[in-house]
Amino acid sequence: MRTSIATVSLSGPLTEKLTAAARAGFDGVEIFENDLLAAPLPPEDIRALCADLGLSIDLYQPMRDIEAVPADVFARNLRRAEHKFRVMRRLGADTLLVCSSVSPLARDDDALAAEQLARLADRAAESGIRVAYEALAWGRHVNTYDHAWRIVEAADHPALGTCLDSFHILARGSGPKDLAGIEDIPGDKIFFLQLADAPKLAMDVLQWSRHYRCFPGQGDLDVAGLLRHVLRAGYRGPLSLEVFNDVFRQAEAGPAAVDALRSLLTLREAVGEANLPAPVVPTGVAFAELVTPDIAPATELLTALGFTRTGRHRGKPVDLWEQGEARILLNTGPAARRDGTVVAAVGLESPDPAGAARRAEALLAPVLPRRRATGDVLLDAVAAPDGTELFFCATDRPGPADWKADFAPTGAEPAACAVRRIDHLALTQPWHQFDEASLFHRGVLGLDAQGSVDVADPYGLLRSRAFSTADGAVRFALGVGPGPADAHDRAQHIALATDDVVAAARRFRAAGGRLLAVPGNYHDDLAARHAFAPGELETYRDLGILYDEDDHGTFLHCYTRTVGRVFFELVQRDGGYRGYGAANTPVRLAAQHDTVGVAAR
Amino acid sequence: MRTSIATVSLSGPLTEKLTAAARAGFDGVEIFENDLLAAPLPPEDIRALCADLGLSIDLYQPMRDIEAVPADVFARNLRRAEHKFRVMRRLGADTLLVCSSVSPLARDDDALAAEQLARLADRAAESGIRVAYEALAWGRHVNTYDHAWRIVEAADHPALGTCLDSFHILARGSGPKDLAGIEDIPGDKIFFLQLADAPKLAMDVLQWSRHYRCFPGQGDLDVAGLLRHVLRAGYRGPLSLEVFNDVFRQAEAGPAAVDALRSLLTLREAVGEANLPAPVVPTGVAFAELVTPDIAPATELLTALGFTRTGRHRGKPVDLWEQGEARILLNTGPAARRDGTVVAAVGLESPDPAGAARRAEALLAPVLPRRRATGDVLLDAVAAPDGTELFFCATDRPGPADWKADFAPTGAEPAACAVRRIDHLALTQPWHQFDEASLFHRGVLGLDAQGSVDVADPYGLLRSRAFSTADGAVRFALGVGPGPADAHDRAQHIALATDDVVAAARRFRAAGGRLLAVPGNYHDDLAARHAFAPGELETYRDLGILYDEDDHGTFLHCYTRTVGRVFFELVQRDGGYRGYGAANTPVRLAAQHDTVGVAAR
Repeated sequence: MRTSIATVSLSGPLTEKLTAAARAGFDGVEIFENDLLAAPLPPEDIRALCADLGLSIDLYQPMRDIEAVPADVFARNLRRAEHKFRVMRRLGADTLLVCSSVSPLARDDDALAAEQLARLADRAAESGIRVAYEALAWGRHVNTYDHAWRIVEAADHPALGTCLDSFHILARGSGPKDLAGIEDIPGDKIFFLQLADAPKLAMDVLQWSRHYRCFPGQGDLDVAGLLRHVLRAGYRGPLSLEVFNDVFRQAEAGPAAVDALRSLLTLREAVGEANLPAPVVPTGVAFAELVTPDIAPATELLTALGFTRTGRHRGKPVDLWEQGEARILLNTGPAARRDGTVVAAVGLESPDPAGAARRAEALLAPVLPRRRATGDVLLDAVAAPDGTELFFCATDRPGPADWKADFAPTGAEPAACAVRRIDHLALTQPWHQFDEASLFHRGVLGLDAQGSVDVADPYGLLRSRAFSTADGAVRFALGVGPGPADAHDRAQHIALATDDVVAAARRFRAAGGRLLAVPGNYHDDLAARHAFAPGELETYRDLGILYDEDDHGTFLHCYTRTVGRVFFELVQRDGGYRGYGAANTPVRLAAQHDTVGVAAR
Repeated sequence: MRTSIATVSLSGPLTEKLTAAARAGFDGVEIFENDLLAAPLPPEDIRALCADLGLSIDLYQPMRDIEAVPADVFARNLRRAEHKFRVMRRLGADTLLVCSSVSPLARDDDALAAEQLARLADRAAESGIRVAYEALAWGRHVNTYDHAWRIVEAADHPALGTCLDSFHILARGSGPKDLAGIEDIPGDKIFFLQLADAPKLAMDVLQWSRHYRCFPGQGDLDVAGLLRHVLRAGYRGPLSLEVFNDVFRQAEAGPAAVDALRSLLTLREAVGEANLPAPVVPTGVAFAELVTPDIAPATELLTALGFTRTGRHRGKPVDLWEQGEARILLNTGPAARRDGTVVAAVGLESPDPAGAARRAEALLAPVLPRRRATGDVLLDAVAAPDGTELFFCATDRPGPADWKADFAPTGAEPAACAVRRIDHLALTQPWHQFDEASLFHRGVLGLDAQGSVDVADPYGLLRSRAFSTADGAVRFALGVGPGPADAHDRAQHIALATDDVVAAARRFRAAGGRLLAVPGNYHDDLAARHAFAPGELETYRDLGILYDEDDHGTFLHCYTRTVGRVFFELVQRDGGYRGYGAANTPVRLAAQHDTVGVAAR
């Protein structure tokens, strides 16, 4: 099954788009007319460039407002079309996309539409060109795929077929029943298939389409479900991405094209048309690695949290700190001097580390060298879109290489403290990589995505989306700031699971740790919203503990002060609470802004 | 008439918001509950701070989902309300905003709603508090102002009134007829009035409200029309701004608060309740001033365009270049070394320069010192939101001071060339100032606004909005890039009006000027869309001339290469064309990206 991408989906001038698509591994492109008009190369040179890059030109698009119009208007439209046919011959493109009309001149007359489309197809055929007619979701009279197909069927012309677009079909809220009709269309009359996903947004469909489309797997539409119907209909043309997105328009074309192809690979897998290594869902967090240029504050923080230094890397300035199943690596190597204190790597407990790496590689994720230095254990690892290194681990298990073997025990035993394991990692993403990170965490790591939420910070709205295993053993909360230049870009935190957050917080404070102070107004308000046992709220107030609840249970959590860009959270989940305390995030962010001048190092 | 602003309209922590509101000159604030919850100060300290700042706390908001619910739910709601009353007593706030319920528990039962709101008002009255009930546009059962008022009327409680919100009323597309009903509400039962504008956007009203509100005069809603009805009803409370806006959330609170107060001043003027100096609409562009660190390329460009150096400033390194009514000042003073080549100032021909400055000052625009150096003519000037200095000029007119008196004639006479005057100035605005610039150009300068348009650049969508006098003598096209960090932030150009763009372009090229090359694909497409005289299109192709048309006439235009951040456009308007060639902007932007490496200095 061939892959294709519309040039409008990528940023930059046309040559840059084409190069990015070819480098990522696409087989072809749809050329968007405006990209051609703005290009300094004549069509012949673009054709030659595509040939050099190994790209076919699968579609030229779009032709608008052509059908079901008065005769004189149609005559003018045919003249426009003849011009496009000439351009297409020069390009070597053989399929023209025609969108259903939005013109006030268009009549609600299917017979007239069919007749005029047949005449257009006649002219097209003389140039060896096929016409693919597509229903825009906001078409004036024709706005559903079955309506467009009825017109194509009535026109009954060999050079006229239909183009299906997942956004236009799914954005109208079409259910499985509506989609089944796709299978009634003969596969060879589906001339083209355009694919896009989108987040669920309650807005005018035209605005939604022009600004918020994304690659399949990044949004909320059932693109795979639609594709199954199209394949059952017998369609054998390319899977082509057509995505209009305000963020992608500003992102670099190269990584965006790789991300785009990854979305098609997972989509093909979802419909059973790709032979990828199976997903290896992680079963826990083996470790989180902090790099820091200044070991003292991080050491103080880990000690106060109850961690014990149990190991020292045999070849590098990296310490292993442990408590329960929670493990933190503290790296003071050269990278630390570049980036400040950040979460640089995460170890994921994997039933099959090599298999996980094979899948990542098949999905175009940057697989990292297995051996970093002489004598190191060979570990499978991959870079996430935000640059975090993800290690696939087999901790204390017979068989696969164990990362712990690189560490010489200090002889110290972890104390039996309150922290049991790493609950989740909250990582702020670079602005342009948020959607890419969605696809990566779902497709490459095999995690489930939750809906994204907006959170108010004193200086802008943040967006956050969680990814986790079904059992909650691995959880990531990915966030993104309000704009590309935002200072929050790289704030990160590690949440530690405890059965008793009050005890853990008290122990932390008794050991000299500083908890983030939460405004008394917050706890006053909590009292008005929920019932607490006598003294309970006073304890929370004293320790800066926040409270949340969902349909499943309750959540208590508090925060340490920040070291560099990193802080810790102590969390207690009761009764199956599934969230991350997002309702309290504005309060936490405001409190951090208040103290950041003091705490930042 | 008192002025007030909701804390949610400004960025930063609560103390910063309050300080910004007070410094701008607001009389009071609405305190948004989440701002209070996130503040480290207890309510008493916030009350004291507001008193120190001279701000009253006019409203505490919001209370949600209280009315028309089952008895047990209402009992819980009353408990929440009692908490809010306590907070309000500590704050010294006497009015609580209650929004119509969106809860699935709410019943469609006006009698129940009235009864429960009356009971709430009873409790409120015990604390000396009044309850203002407002219909949210997306309220479950109550979503129009008249429905909310009927319930308030039925409840018939002295401590219960209604709150009107311009967004909620106007966003539902309410026409003049629907609004007249406001006058049937007794003025003393309108407890509060919240004002916000919004651009016309086809989207879900909740999303629209939460992300795109703006200050009155910045959007497309008829806020003044609504205010007239409210005043006729007898309302004498504060005019209060409540604006949720993704951009304002990231902007500095200080300038945003000034902009907010300016919007209320112009709004009061619009309803005849403010005694501002009358607008002085400019009658032409007296000059544009370029500053440049490197005089040679700018001089070459002006010479090739047909300008003659006719004057030299008596005290500063500034030259006057003239052609027809077009005048360019070329400044090589110290500012140039800081900013590169930019448009630093614009002279606007004004029937009453002093009056224009008085109006600007009354509308809180930064009025600039009249005398810059000993011996200079005293000129009235003001800074636009983007920092451009605007001089109010009386060129060659008896009476007011003439800026030209500062220039010693060189003796050279302007040649009779093709350029007649400055057609428009296209100035890219800093990202956070685009809405502020709207209000400034309408309110301070007295220009009319056109709708804003999106334009695709190879690296993102730009937004553009034009402001002009009715006769087109003064035109500004303001643009803004896709994000705060965008590299286009300060691109600017000066469009020169000519009666014959072909002749002007040829003369420019013959004089050694370089025109921006336009892709041949663009002209190929033009041929398919429009009919041209024989040879006409070849001329346009040769010179890089672009073509556009609107309902009124046609537009021909071409561009010079860029010097620093500035370039020139030659334009020919025929038959009353009103636009700015926006349809061609993507082609121009792509061509500029292609050559920017060559042309940028």
